[in-house]
Amino acid sequence: MPHLHLEYTANLTNLAVEKTLLRLNNVLMASGQFGSEFDIKSRAVKVETFLVGTSLSPRGFMAVRLSLLSGRSPQVKKQLSESLLAALQDLGDWPADIQVQLSVQVIDMDRESYSKVAIG
Amino acid sequence: MPHLHLEYTANLTNLAVEKTLLRLNNVLMASGQFGSEFDIKSRAVKVETFLVGTSLSPRGFMAVRLSLLSGRSPQVKKQLSESLLAALQDLGDWPADIQVQLSVQVIDMDRESYSKVAIG
Amino acid sequence: MPHLHLEYTANLTNLAVEKTLLRLNNVLMASGQFGSEFDIKSRAVKVETFLVGTSLSPRGFMAVRLSLLSGRSPQVKKQLSESLLAALQDLGDWPADIQVQLSVQVIDMDRESYSKVAIG
Repeated sequence: MPHLHLEYTANLTNLAVEKTLLRLNNVLMASGQFGSEFDIKSRAVKVETFLVGTSLSPRGFMAVRLSLLSGRSPQVKKQLSESLLAALQDLGDWPADIQVQLSVQVIDMDRESYSKVAIG
Repeated sequence: MPHLHLEYTANLTNLAVEKTLLRLNNVLMASGQFGSEFDIKSRAVKVETFLVGTSLSPRGFMAVRLSLLSGRSPQVKKQLSESLLAALQDLGDWPADIQVQLSVQVIDMDRESYSKVAIG
Repeated sequence: MPHLHLEYTANLTNLAVEKTLLRLNNVLMASGQFGSEFDIKSRAVKVETFLVGTSLSPRGFMAVRLSLLSGRSPQVKKQLSESLLAALQDLGDWPADIQVQLSVQVIDMDRESYSKVAIG
């Protein structure tokens, strides 16, 4: 906890994916919501097959899902979401001919049934 | 919003994935629940490593997750789910020797902490 | 139902992924919570691009998401989570130089809007 999933469409060819993950993790640490940087587990997945709407116009998206143990306030979740979105917007350098949508979703994970262990 | 994820197992080799996404997006638009086709963001992921149950019989699945901003009625969510399932069933042309399961799940996304922006 | 997603980072190169899925499905069947083994749909996804925290130390993770139709008790969900985590821990044979985190999350799927059908 937290878990972060970043999806990005394959037509965003200029995206520095590893740098993006580092920025997002830095945003999470800077929020002060998480005790240890070690707990932040983030991954990026390139989406090769996608369709935005019903038109064939060139479109793409980046979508973040942030999964948190339940219990944080609506205000905290909103702030985390907006901070992550701002970090995505700061990436800049979008392909000029593609309409890109950025989104961030925050998901509560049931705290009682969440299990974890660290090895080594 | 909405976000749609389609997973399909790699043994469904006849599947026309891009056509399937278009059909699913058309179902969503036809529902009248979404203001703009531009908002519908769908992706398909081929699942290479999977196991249905504990038998080695040839099996596969297609699984849709539809993520909606919270607030829609149970009836609307059920109708969306059944319409998407019907669209999957209409695909037909399943491998004769594989037991295929189709499923659709609807997920509420927390509206207050959902952020998005469109670029360009 | 149930659906199980296993993510594992690409640096866990010794992982026997198919055997792992079989073990996890066996744990689910042994729980007595599911009527038919046929209903258990599990998949494993290798995560190629990931970042744990903000350090460049060698780290990795395995993360299970178990999605259940809503209605099970907190106790049942906690037991399922702990049983799956124990099965992951039993895998052993972790790379000596990588800090590995294992986690299991249980998600309720809205029962009313879940649709499925089996073909063939």
